[in-house]
Amino acid sequence: MELEYLLTNIAPWLTGDGPEADIVLSSRIRLARNLKGFNFLRKTGEASRREILDLICGVIDKVSPLSGSTVVKLEGLPDLDRLFLMERHLISRELSPDYQGAVIIGPEEIVSLMINEEDHLRIQIIRSGMSLSRCWEEIQKVDAELEKVLEYEYSPVYGYLTACPSNVGTGMRASVMIHLPALVLHKQIDKIIQTVGKLGLAVRGINGEGSQAAGNMFQISNQSTLGKSEEEILGDLEKIISKIIVHERNGRRVLLERQLLRIEDQIYRALGILNNARLITSEETIDLLSALRMGVDLEVLETITRGTVNQLFLYTQPAHLQKLAGSSLDATKRDALRAKLIRDKIEKEGR
Amino acid sequence: MELEYLLTNIAPWLTGDGPEADIVLSSRIRLARNLKGFNFLRKTGEASRREILDLICGVIDKVSPLSGSTVVKLEGLPDLDRLFLMERHLISRELSPDYQGAVIIGPEEIVSLMINEEDHLRIQIIRSGMSLSRCWEEIQKVDAELEKVLEYEYSPVYGYLTACPSNVGTGMRASVMIHLPALVLHKQIDKIIQTVGKLGLAVRGINGEGSQAAGNMFQISNQSTLGKSEEEILGDLEKIISKIIVHERNGRRVLLERQLLRIEDQIYRALGILNNARLITSEETIDLLSALRMGVDLEVLETITRGTVNQLFLYTQPAHLQKLAGSSLDATKRDALRAKLIRDKIEKEGR
Repeated sequence: MELEYLLTNIAPWLTGDGPEADIVLSSRIRLARNLKGFNFLRKTGEASRREILDLICGVIDKVSPLSGSTVVKLEGLPDLDRLFLMERHLISRELSPDYQGAVIIGPEEIVSLMINEEDHLRIQIIRSGMSLSRCWEEIQKVDAELEKVLEYEYSPVYGYLTACPSNVGTGMRASVMIHLPALVLHKQIDKIIQTVGKLGLAVRGINGEGSQAAGNMFQISNQSTLGKSEEEILGDLEKIISKIIVHERNGRRVLLERQLLRIEDQIYRALGILNNARLITSEETIDLLSALRMGVDLEVLETITRGTVNQLFLYTQPAHLQKLAGSSLDATKRDALRAKLIRDKIEKEGR
Repeated sequence: MELEYLLTNIAPWLTGDGPEADIVLSSRIRLARNLKGFNFLRKTGEASRREILDLICGVIDKVSPLSGSTVVKLEGLPDLDRLFLMERHLISRELSPDYQGAVIIGPEEIVSLMINEEDHLRIQIIRSGMSLSRCWEEIQKVDAELEKVLEYEYSPVYGYLTACPSNVGTGMRASVMIHLPALVLHKQIDKIIQTVGKLGLAVRGINGEGSQAAGNMFQISNQSTLGKSEEEILGDLEKIISKIIVHERNGRRVLLERQLLRIEDQIYRALGILNNARLITSEETIDLLSALRMGVDLEVLETITRGTVNQLFLYTQPAHLQKLAGSSLDATKRDALRAKLIRDKIEKEGR
């Protein structure tokens, strides 16, 4: 399976031109679905899992948004490719070759399906900026077309039945990746996270569950999937995100009004290091790119686009670097290649 | 007294083109002298000190290396100007308006005289690079010409008599400012300092006695002035400095051979921050300029000259910045102006 074509694909969710893209990086919705006539995965044998995989792969040609998709089976897939797909948000850490896991990557990486992850099927749509409504429209279409050719496990009382009770009902998880440097600088972020948590939403760092909030980026998603319609869940999430956006914007205005020089200093130092370092870890890169993004969003830096910063976030990750290099690299070589990639990209942009 | 002319004067000791200038910043010799017929300063009254001042100022026209000198009396001199002269190594912290202190600044700031510091007269020569012999030749000439028109306190047994016993004999203090980044990186510097101390030399940081070794710069000077001739003292000092230079050169070679990428990373990061910061303290500046100088000396950076780095060391100090601005500035304004000065200078150089 050749994944190299993805390296040159600038997925639409990376372009940084969606609504509220100065604060919201991306919006994502996924639906958990299971097929009638099969046990939940934990209770299946290999034969059933292969059957599920074949069944789903066999129908994708009939689902128009999936036409021209790439099917990637995890069995036999090199670890590097698996990490690469994780970095691109196309698969989760849980998708396993031992469970005949696979991913179907739709055109432009907008829609994707994970097969045999925790549920038989997970459908995902990811878009740039604050685009939950658009994601919802699009994922409904995929879901509806799939439902025409697959029979879902569905209870009139509970809704969609899922392997983990936390997904029962809508089976929907909607999440928004949001960049909150001003709220972090003003030390208001802990309070925001607390409040958001009390409102029934989950707040996580850039790399999903349990990860720390590197680069001032936070992923906010719904927790409950039961007892409310998808539209209600999305409406609640959007309302809260809108309020956080207002807070962040106010925070940024205050920074520009009262601490312009300090903020410019932080932004330009980040640019100076990114433009000059010969060795740089991914942790430091994320923090400096966060400052760079703030520079673009505050219109302090005008020679760099938001899309470039977004792409650097993605392409400086370990598996992306190694795919770009075409070979596996030790940590120092990665740090050197990462530094070079960043310099080249920023220099190219500056011209 | 207008000192502004000094701001545009690139003193020869700053040009960075003396012998061994990749390691030795500057060489300096000063001679302590006292006038016959006057008590040492601690036991003089104001009238005597004025008499000493007038006496010395009255003869400088007869001393050819001092022709065209500027006389700066400390009485009434703004604090900023005093600090400015200290930063240029033209006066010491001890030279005081309360003691009718004054400085005579020779052409190009090569030779200077301090009057009424600890002794009645201190003669100084400062030159770029490892230039103790040249300094010695030149200071002997100034000293000899002065001795024709002034009568020094001199004992056939002890030599020149001085206010502090530690200067009796030759009255000579020779010092070399030396940049040792490789020995610091290799953690060999403490051993070197210990050894040098045992050999009867003093090692100090960039700003003289008691100051820390900021920017990997060390000032090494003779301690004893008695029982040996000036030539012997200078010979011993030169011999030890030569050995330190060999060690530093070896250290640099090892860095280039074994840690090139790490060293380049350090150098380019320093350049990137200096080139981009909007606020920078003098402490951080010294450390980053040290890395920049190493970059120039190791021929990693080729667009910047050693002279530029030397000038930045001097002109980014607080009094220099405020003299350049033409007004007194608070710490934040200084940090902002310092950052701008550095950016402008490096950008100009790069063109």
